[in-house]
Amino acid sequence: MKAAAMAVQVGIALTLVANSVQAAEPKPLAPKPSVADIVKESKAADWRALDLENTLYMDLPGGRVVIELAPAFAPNHARNIKALARESYFDGLAIIRSQDNFVVQWGDPDEQNPRPVKNAKEKLAAEFTAPMKNDTGFTRLKDVDGYAPQVGHSNGFPVGRDPKKGETWLAHCYAMVGVGRDNESDSGGGTALYVVTGQSPRHLDRNITVVGRVISGMPLLSTVPRGPAPMGFFDKPEMRIPIKTFRVAADLPELERSKFEVMRTDSSTYQKVVDAQRNRGGPWTKVAAGHIDLCHAPIPVREQK
Amino acid sequence: MKAAAMAVQVGIALTLVANSVQAAEPKPLAPKPSVADIVKESKAADWRALDLENTLYMDLPGGRVVIELAPAFAPNHARNIKALARESYFDGLAIIRSQDNFVVQWGDPDEQNPRPVKNAKEKLAAEFTAPMKNDTGFTRLKDVDGYAPQVGHSNGFPVGRDPKKGETWLAHCYAMVGVGRDNESDSGGGTALYVVTGQSPRHLDRNITVVGRVISGMPLLSTVPRGPAPMGFFDKPEMRIPIKTFRVAADLPELERSKFEVMRTDSSTYQKVVDAQRNRGGPWTKVAAGHIDLCHAPIPVREQK
Repeated sequence: MKAAAMAVQVGIALTLVANSVQAAEPKPLAPKPSVADIVKESKAADWRALDLENTLYMDLPGGRVVIELAPAFAPNHARNIKALARESYFDGLAIIRSQDNFVVQWGDPDEQNPRPVKNAKEKLAAEFTAPMKNDTGFTRLKDVDGYAPQVGHSNGFPVGRDPKKGETWLAHCYAMVGVGRDNESDSGGGTALYVVTGQSPRHLDRNITVVGRVISGMPLLSTVPRGPAPMGFFDKPEMRIPIKTFRVAADLPELERSKFEVMRTDSSTYQKVVDAQRNRGGPWTKVAAGHIDLCHAPIPVREQK
Repeated sequence: MKAAAMAVQVGIALTLVANSVQAAEPKPLAPKPSVADIVKESKAADWRALDLENTLYMDLPGGRVVIELAPAFAPNHARNIKALARESYFDGLAIIRSQDNFVVQWGDPDEQNPRPVKNAKEKLAAEFTAPMKNDTGFTRLKDVDGYAPQVGHSNGFPVGRDPKKGETWLAHCYAMVGVGRDNESDSGGGTALYVVTGQSPRHLDRNITVVGRVISGMPLLSTVPRGPAPMGFFDKPEMRIPIKTFRVAADLPELERSKFEVMRTDSSTYQKVVDAQRNRGGPWTKVAAGHIDLCHAPIPVREQK
């Protein structure tokens, strides 16, 4: 399986093979190992398996979406979303919104007769940020960022943080999953979830509870036809994509589980991955960027065979 | 018509209306005009019509994609792509690649018997950057950027520039259109084009000739099912989406033309648009970002009625 998060690595290529005069390139960059090369040469210790108790499977007609929860950042929401999954809250609900270059959202399409929540909570206090002391394993990127004093990765999630305030938060990068809410900070609880499918909307950071990241299955969400109603909501029931089941991985029998590993973002190998993307070598690349944006740093995922 | 570039403006909302206890918000942000409010109150002079001679229509089975060329940045490629359109080069060719969180590409799927180029050129010298003196109407963003010493907008296009080198270039933001090439800088000419459909791949800036921006029709491209072959190429002919026609707007009769206007990025109204996104007001927003990334700055487009 080729991870979505690694898809940013490759250059633009023609399908046709060039066959004519080649101009001399000024100061060609020396070839360097690519992200794919470093991933290929990584060791078993550079990877960790997903924690089944913090992994969700959303099974859609087209296949499975695998979500890794981040309880260190949103413990109450992570717990509540698992409680929702365990009371089968999402089963039979649907994807109800797809807004181009922004988000895809799922939940209850029926505003008049909403599905009742049983044991889980309907609303929770916001977890927009977490205390920095809860955030273990942070590895800082040296790169400048306009939205946060510091950025980097914690246990496979992109994060921003503010040491002066002692706050850390999950960043709104591609594939990150958050909790829809109304105007009040405590008006969400996990019954409406969304995933980022467009340019990272980092202005939402610290304004919404982010709970995890899609590890596999992004194309099932990113290609959902855009909704014609305001904010990309669907205006006809037939546009909805039904959620077959939404479950905690630990609750499934062994044979029904997906087996993914995430590269350890506190490993030296991951630092090589980031630098391979920050400063790419030749021959295709002519100018190395010398920088990487937080949301452009790949977080490699692989499926165990 | 709601422009794709404006779709980033709205917040995440529940479909359900909150109906319970509302917690007091700490230090609520004062309400401010939104991007949509500023667009609504803009004057006719804040907008410019597209130049028909530098506008392309790619008609797909699902509808029309409108591309604005940027001849100030890539004059030879813009001219050549128009020449290709005028010899009907792309008509009957296809979308041949869709890579998740990266690009969608179109051109000739037939590597064995490629369609010959008639009057246009097959290859051109690179136009990765342009002299700053050619770039009129630059309005700088005050925001920090990791990929370029200066960023801002020129006549409706996102650009980076380096005053020390006297260079300016179109930035790889969502919806920007570029020219596929092989390893040699001069191996492209416009027969293979791509559009950015994912997180801005700014490391490609100054490595490839960027020629313009999709003004309308992005959802026709961004939702193309991802290709299973390496780099998102399609491995079966039935995955291809045929290009019905690819034409220069000026060549069409009046009644077949689309009529779009782009907000003037050197207007004071546009500065208000950017600041409305940089620092959003309440009640939904709790923390204003105080920053905007170049590729997150909306460039409003509207259809003339």
